Formats: sequence, C-alpha cells, structure tokens
Amino acid sequence: MELLKQRILRDGKNLGSGILKVDRFINHQVDPELMDACGLEFARLFAGIGAQKVLTAEISGIAPALMTGKYLNLPVVYARKSKPITMPHEVYLTVAPSHTKGNNVELIVSPEYLGRDERILIIDDFLASGATIAGLVRLAQVAGAQVVGIGTLIEKSFEGGRNLLSYLNIPIHSLVTISSMDAGGIVFAD
Amino acid sequence: MELLKQRILRDGKNLGSGILKVDRFINHQVDPELMDACGLEFARLFAGIGAQKVLTAEISGIAPALMTGKYLNLPVVYARKSKPITMPHEVYLTVAPSHTKGNNVELIVSPEYLGRDERILIIDDFLASGATIAGLVRLAQVAGAQVVGIGTLIEKSFEGGRNLLSYLNIPIHSLVTISSMDAGGIVFAD
Repeated sequence: MELLKQRILRDGKNLGSGILKVDRFINHQVDPELMDACGLEFARLFAGIGAQKVLTAEISGIAPALMTGKYLNLPVVYARKSKPITMPHEVYLTVAPSHTKGNNVELIVSPEYLGRDERILIIDDFLASGATIAGLVRLAQVAGAQVVGIGTLIEKSFEGGRNLLSYLNIPIHSLVTISSMDAGGIVFAD
Repeated sequence: MELLKQRILRDGKNLGSGILKVDRFINHQVDPELMDACGLEFARLFAGIGAQKVLTAEISGIAPALMTGKYLNLPVVYARKSKPITMPHEVYLTVAPSHTKGNNVELIVSPEYLGRDERILIIDDFLASGATIAGLVRLAQVAGAQVVGIGTLIEKSFEGGRNLLSYLNIPIHSLVTISSMDAGGIVFAD
C-alpha cells in the first residue's frame, strides 16, 4: 500500500535491533485518515472470507481493527492485557512474549465475546515474530472459533512471523512488507 | 445522544458501586458504527473551538477519539500507561487514580506530540470522577498546550467530574449523562 509506505519513509525511524518507530502516525500519535484508508484496504482484501468478527490486541491494533470493522460492518474485540473488574472471573487467557517490551504479556478475552464457530479476522499493527498474533489465534481456538484471515499494517519479513503462522493455511495480508532494517535503513520487499 | 442511550439500556449493565459495564460495545468489544456516529457527534459539538489535536488516554478512549479525529481532520494522541522503548527518555508524565482498577495509573505523552500553544480537544469514554481527564489536562498544561474542549461518551454526573473540571471554563460535552445508578438501575439525566 503506497500511502503507508510513503508515510513510513517520511515519518518512520529505524531505531536499530529491528525496532521501527512509527509513533507519529500509528501507535502514540495516530493519523485517523491513514487508519481509515488502511481499514478500507483490509476490507477489500478480506471481503470474501466471511468473517464475523475482528479480533486484535490492545493497544496499537485497535485503530486499524476499528476501521476495518467499520468497513466490513463487523464488531471488533480487543484482547486486554489485564483483566478489568467488568470482566467475568472465567476468561480466555494466553501469554505471549512482547518483542518491544522484552517480557511476557497476557492476552485476555471474555468468553462473552468469542463464540464457538465464529469466523475471526485478526488485525494488528505489526507482523514481526508473530508471537502476539499466534496468541490471538490460541485464544480463538480455545473458544472454538475459527481464524479465517490475518491482516497487519507492517510486516517485518526478516523476523519470520509469516512462517510461524503458515500452518494455519489462511490468507495473511500485510499492507507493507519490510525485508531488511540492517545498517539503519528501511528496505521494502517490493 | 439517543443512539448511545438506547444501546446502554440494551447492552449496558449496572454492576453496582457506580460501575457501568459497557464492554459489549465500547471497551472490550467495540461497535465501530456506533463509535463512528459518536465521533461525528463530537465533531459537530466541537466544530467551532479551533482544536488542532485530539488527546485521549489508552485504552478505551482510543475508539471515540479516533473517530472524532477523523471527522475533525485532526491527529489523535493517546497517553500511554507505560513507556514503550520507542519513546524518548524525557517524557511528560502524570499520575491519576483509576476508578475501575483501584490503583494509580501513569499517563505518559512524548514531548514530540504535544506542542506549545497547541489547541487540544480531550475525548474519553467516561467522565466519572474526572481524575483521568484532569491528568490529561495536566499533561497538556505542562507541555504549554491549551485544552479547549472536553468530550466524553458517558458522564456519571453523580461522581462530580464536571465540577472538578469546571475551573477550566471550557466546553464540556457528554453524549449521555447518567444521574443515578442506585438500586441497580440506570437513570439518565434528561
């Protein structure tokens, strides 16, 4: 997606160690118009998979997931990282290592909002190691739901997440793919 | 706003102790269409205040803030509750007591995204005690920015937040106002 690629080139920063700073337009300051365009693109890419719900992880996944849900006319569920008091005592919980925080984070979804046989589209900001998305897949599976597609804004193909998730045999779309961040640069796959 | 009021009556739950469960459409599962309508309404209410940025707090404020920013054509900044590694070492940080968590939470904004003399519209899901919003106001003030309006989806007028913030002498709009949650009910102000 050219719009997102150009924005990464203009406002993204390679901080080293494979960390891409995009907090000017995705995950601290957010550009609603860009997120809207990304949601529209996800809706186009996943129009035919019969998804019934969009699932993401707080926090950075919320903006693209919300815009995707808007265009596909689907509810959005974001997995919480801590259990609020409004959630029932019995929850679906999994643990995923966080790349940018260097620790493990919990991903929690209330059984109220993940149903047996529901068709789930996972949307997130990054596909890097795939650990967070694999955690969301586990939550869906435990609930008896079926993940039918995965969409991310930015894939870092050199971190192997797509490979990790390939066993699912479902469509995985990233709006831009970065193939290398060596030597301070940002190299796109195409 | 009638649409939101009807949704609260249908899907909201009074859990006691002044806690309103709205996680079927606002803060765990999100209804994008409803959030879009709320954003449009905030854009109408705050069209004339010359805001240059929307400020909110993660996590539940993101959806309504994003939709408001979309309609006002403004960037959205969400205060983080922990400092990610992509953020500079020097940040704006304040501490606000959390009603639903029973502890204090940090609210952190990078100086990159709050500028001197910027005109800030604060959007959040709830106006209850006003503690979180007062924290966002402090962050804006420390940055030398100016808060010019406050909008929330749901005001619980019996918790006094509006009074706490009245010294700012700026427009405060809530899309629905709940005046009482005694005896298990949900009573709207109008």
